[in-house]
Amino acid sequence: MVNDPTVDPAKGSWIPVPPDSPFPIQNLPYGVFVARGARPHVGVAIGNRILDLDVLAEAGLLDDLELPWGVFATGSLNPLLGLGRGMWIALRQRISDLLDFDNREIRDHWGLAEQVLIPMRDAVMLLPIEVRDYVDFYSSQQHATNLGKMFRPGSDPLLPNWLHLPVGYHGRASSVVVSGTPVVRPHGQIKIGDEQPIWEPSYALDFELEVGFITGNGNELGARIAPADAAEFIFGLVLVNDWSARDIQRWEYVPLGPFLGKSFATSISPWVVPLDAVAPYRVPGPVQDPAPLHYLRTDADWNIDLHLEVALQSETMAEQDMAPHVVSRTNFSTMYWNMAQQLAHASSNGANVRAGDLYASGTVSGDEPDSYGSLIELTWRGSRAIDLPDGSTRAFLEDGDTVVMRGWCGGDGRPRIGFGEVSGMVYPAI
Amino acid sequence: MVNDPTVDPAKGSWIPVPPDSPFPIQNLPYGVFVARGARPHVGVAIGNRILDLDVLAEAGLLDDLELPWGVFATGSLNPLLGLGRGMWIALRQRISDLLDFDNREIRDHWGLAEQVLIPMRDAVMLLPIEVRDYVDFYSSQQHATNLGKMFRPGSDPLLPNWLHLPVGYHGRASSVVVSGTPVVRPHGQIKIGDEQPIWEPSYALDFELEVGFITGNGNELGARIAPADAAEFIFGLVLVNDWSARDIQRWEYVPLGPFLGKSFATSISPWVVPLDAVAPYRVPGPVQDPAPLHYLRTDADWNIDLHLEVALQSETMAEQDMAPHVVSRTNFSTMYWNMAQQLAHASSNGANVRAGDLYASGTVSGDEPDSYGSLIELTWRGSRAIDLPDGSTRAFLEDGDTVVMRGWCGGDGRPRIGFGEVSGMVYPAI
Repeated sequence: MVNDPTVDPAKGSWIPVPPDSPFPIQNLPYGVFVARGARPHVGVAIGNRILDLDVLAEAGLLDDLELPWGVFATGSLNPLLGLGRGMWIALRQRISDLLDFDNREIRDHWGLAEQVLIPMRDAVMLLPIEVRDYVDFYSSQQHATNLGKMFRPGSDPLLPNWLHLPVGYHGRASSVVVSGTPVVRPHGQIKIGDEQPIWEPSYALDFELEVGFITGNGNELGARIAPADAAEFIFGLVLVNDWSARDIQRWEYVPLGPFLGKSFATSISPWVVPLDAVAPYRVPGPVQDPAPLHYLRTDADWNIDLHLEVALQSETMAEQDMAPHVVSRTNFSTMYWNMAQQLAHASSNGANVRAGDLYASGTVSGDEPDSYGSLIELTWRGSRAIDLPDGSTRAFLEDGDTVVMRGWCGGDGRPRIGFGEVSGMVYPAI
Repeated sequence: MVNDPTVDPAKGSWIPVPPDSPFPIQNLPYGVFVARGARPHVGVAIGNRILDLDVLAEAGLLDDLELPWGVFATGSLNPLLGLGRGMWIALRQRISDLLDFDNREIRDHWGLAEQVLIPMRDAVMLLPIEVRDYVDFYSSQQHATNLGKMFRPGSDPLLPNWLHLPVGYHGRASSVVVSGTPVVRPHGQIKIGDEQPIWEPSYALDFELEVGFITGNGNELGARIAPADAAEFIFGLVLVNDWSARDIQRWEYVPLGPFLGKSFATSISPWVVPLDAVAPYRVPGPVQDPAPLHYLRTDADWNIDLHLEVALQSETMAEQDMAPHVVSRTNFSTMYWNMAQQLAHASSNGANVRAGDLYASGTVSGDEPDSYGSLIELTWRGSRAIDLPDGSTRAFLEDGDTVVMRGWCGGDGRPRIGFGEVSGMVYPAI
């Protein structure tokens, strides 16, 4: 990993990259955008611009890779994901070369440069993948402990299986949306105390701060993926807001798990950060005790030193041009179960992994109360409401609130591998 | 419904249909097949033949419908599903007309007839849909009660929410396979008594007899579907075997529900029976008490008098040419929650329904012990093993066992609307 020239911190681009940009040449995340009246194309973020890979391929600058025709013009990353890691590496290397300060293939051809580089402000980002299966894990020990304390007071907050396997479930793929998509407050069955259940808009709408990984084609049905092979199948990472209606979830979830309390919307960030881009920021995870069973064992550093934060902006704050207020700061490196273990577990029964699957981490909550990744934890079930700069308080989300999640590796003198943000505004119930 | 000429029991076809055929002219189910070295086409079953809709369209016989070009040659029913109910009705009517005894458009043109009609024995059936989201419900009161008695003895077998909403969860779409696909016995974490969990092949592999419905495009994200509108979005029905590893499921399922105990395989029958074909067999469901909340209310007859059976064939029985042995006979009409309620519930929070979603009923178990839809119920958790004709007994499935599920409406002097079968053989763990 260390010798991968695409992440060399000394490398620079001929495209101007502001010092605080999330998208230096060491990052090169992939997304799908529309601009200039064209159909959706796959692009790569660099500074404040998007490199249009479809136009680049049409211009012949990717010919050596022998890519399938039109692979960047289908409206999703899925065809690229399906080409496998060998092609991902070759493409990333080629793009890194083309943008390198000393490379003249685009730099010295102003007409070409103008064609293949789109200002971000002129583009609209779309959902980057056609989501096939969506799996949501529950891999932060602090988060699982917090919820256990709140919902099962007096008993062991961690259920017996938690330390033995990365608990997870399938979520709904159809309602995964890209950052910026409004989220309509869901209706649902809600039961209060001994009353009969009612059907009302959720009054306990929450966010969950998560990080997701996206796969290429994996195992055949019936086979499995070992943790040591996980990097072959993990293309990249996104930020995930796993919107949750706590009141709906609480009544529905026994015995088959969350359903309508989650399935109304899941937001992801538009830029998929390649696994290779975060390689310099891979760190050891926490000691796992008991030792995982052999199918979950890995010696590699699979945790990531990825800073995360959540900010809230009320409608009043937006009207008064007040910036979103940070309510939580945490780090993805605190996760107990890592991505390689999650993928190995999900395929351990022979279930087949496909290009375009999304696997989310579960809420990322650190040890400190201001590093929890959901409102229900930050406010401890509403018992200590959060103060917003407009003078209002929050136990749960109100209509007009915008939730903004951000993430980045490095930045402390090292290249900043930014994830951009995933945001969404709560619209009133219909 | 009664005036729909496609289900007129007096109607007959110029294609010979054996009296016990599941596929008379009143049925006309859709599937995807390969034959004659061609790419996969959409076809309709009639007697022992398949009407090739792609060839039919190419021959100009569907021109009046103004179908999109190539809609029957994409390898799945999804494009047809996406055209909406108006087109489904028009297409079914046209096919019914073409196959009607008095219609000469194909009948009198032997060359054409030979081209568009494939003997079933020459075709291989494929998975009929590209499964988008897969939801599995739990809507048989007897099944939920049986499992409650086994897993929570001494307490109320039905959990408090069960009579108020159709409990369900999302399953894995990637591992939905067509009838005939082998099912590899899954490995998984298994915990026995106070021992540490081990990772072993499941020793408690089971089937679940279910019926699923498949949708066309539904609501926009954020909107909902009322029970009264459900028929607009339900294209047709299939048989479902929701293979289950009870030992894996028992250890993993708290608090987020079934995951690897189910996700290794789900088998469906290849022929999708149109909702319109079963219309004459719609019957009232059981009285629902308490009355469902208004978003779940429907006065229409949404239960279906659909006979179901499960048969087992061991490897020894197969070698000795012994037919699969029926171990359960039941009826889909016994379900507490119906399809309209399930669809309304699944979309009640604004989650969007898409063309190619699969919604399975949950295990269909009748009142009598020989009408239960899973081995764990039939053998009451292994305490009363099933005798097979080869002298062996079964508590759970063994390697080499083939599970065959069959379903049909009518047949007692009325047109037999057959579902064919969904079968699968258990292969040893890898």
